Amino acid sequence: MQLIHAPASPFARKVRVMAHETGLLSRMQLLDTAVLPTSLNAQVNALNPLGKVPVLLTDNGEALFDSRVICEYLDSLHDKPPLYPVDAPARWRSLRLAAVADGLLDAALLVRYERAVRPTEQQWDAWVDGQTGKIQRALLTLEAQAGDLQGTLDIAQITVACALGYLDFRFAELDWRSAAPALAAFHAVFATRDSMRLTAPV
Amino acid sequence: MQLIHAPASPFARKVRVMAHETGLLSRMQLLDTAVLPTSLNAQVNALNPLGKVPVLLTDNGEALFDSRVICEYLDSLHDKPPLYPVDAPARWRSLRLAAVADGLLDAALLVRYERAVRPTEQQWDAWVDGQTGKIQRALLTLEAQAGDLQGTLDIAQITVACALGYLDFRFAELDWRSAAPALAAFHAVFATRDSMRLTAPV
Repeated sequence: MQLIHAPASPFARKVRVMAHETGLLSRMQLLDTAVLPTSLNAQVNALNPLGKVPVLLTDNGEALFDSRVICEYLDSLHDKPPLYPVDAPARWRSLRLAAVADGLLDAALLVRYERAVRPTEQQWDAWVDGQTGKIQRALLTLEAQAGDLQGTLDIAQITVACALGYLDFRFAELDWRSAAPALAAFHAVFATRDSMRLTAPV
Repeated sequence: MQLIHAPASPFARKVRVMAHETGLLSRMQLLDTAVLPTSLNAQVNALNPLGKVPVLLTDNGEALFDSRVICEYLDSLHDKPPLYPVDAPARWRSLRLAAVADGLLDAALLVRYERAVRPTEQQWDAWVDGQTGKIQRALLTLEAQAGDLQGTLDIAQITVACALGYLDFRFAELDWRSAAPALAAFHAVFATRDSMRLTAPV
């Protein structure tokens, strides 16, 4: 398999953490690239018309995306306990928490594009405020449900950890730990896993 | 169950089409609302910190989102043939096509917010061009794989049909049919289903 990824992409990090945790990393060749919504990346576009990473090229030569589809696909390839719980209610609790963290990341990337890519004169504070509100409410929701991030490793823990890692990487000024002490305690432990240490953005 | 939705939301439409097709609509109360990234909707935010629709309140009082999680949850509640294929390779083909259509919609909504919500002076043509490129490449990818949209009803067909319906609703000037005749033929038939007719945005 080949994973087309960008070292700074939190969605690509999710996939790399999955690959580490499931023992699939040795079967995966990592190909670095960089994407931006406002510039064409012909290599990525040829595999994913949405122009986003991660993209997984399977051994059958099929291109899979987005990160959720790839993570679920990887989960079908190993014999360890599944990272997507199979049965209700664990499955829906896990998918819901992962959706909160994925949504937090969507909002964070939109803020990042607004502040770091868009020309200053075209930036719109109401947009940034609206997306930042999503990030902050998502943090409070995750904080309230931090108890569900314990127990057997699952896609919720991985997604939440990658989301918090992205806030550390790009939104240090948000100081998310001060409003989310239980999440901070979760992250302090989770971030010591090899899968997280070896995929940290620099 | 209660579904918090907006009549114009293509992601909410996906869920409503699923509910029709799986016979679950009679168990679902529909609650209309409207959301925008730049304005607070306290009712929605209380259920989904991301401030987006659709949100499904289950009979257990649990709030599920986003549309993918809801659609998969609904698929677990009925006894008809599953709309998420269970086995490879059908499952990955279906999830991949649905991801193309979901990504097309993400790009289309970003263009919509840029052109219809953001003040004119803060609009950035390069952003609109970049997102429009994603829409157009996604259309060509779906066109090339329109053959996979035949056969047993699945989440790919539903997602693609809702995406094309949204282009008709908000992007008529894109004239997507001229570049995608096979998709146009698919949509012409699929749009006659009760589930589609009864959920068309107005």
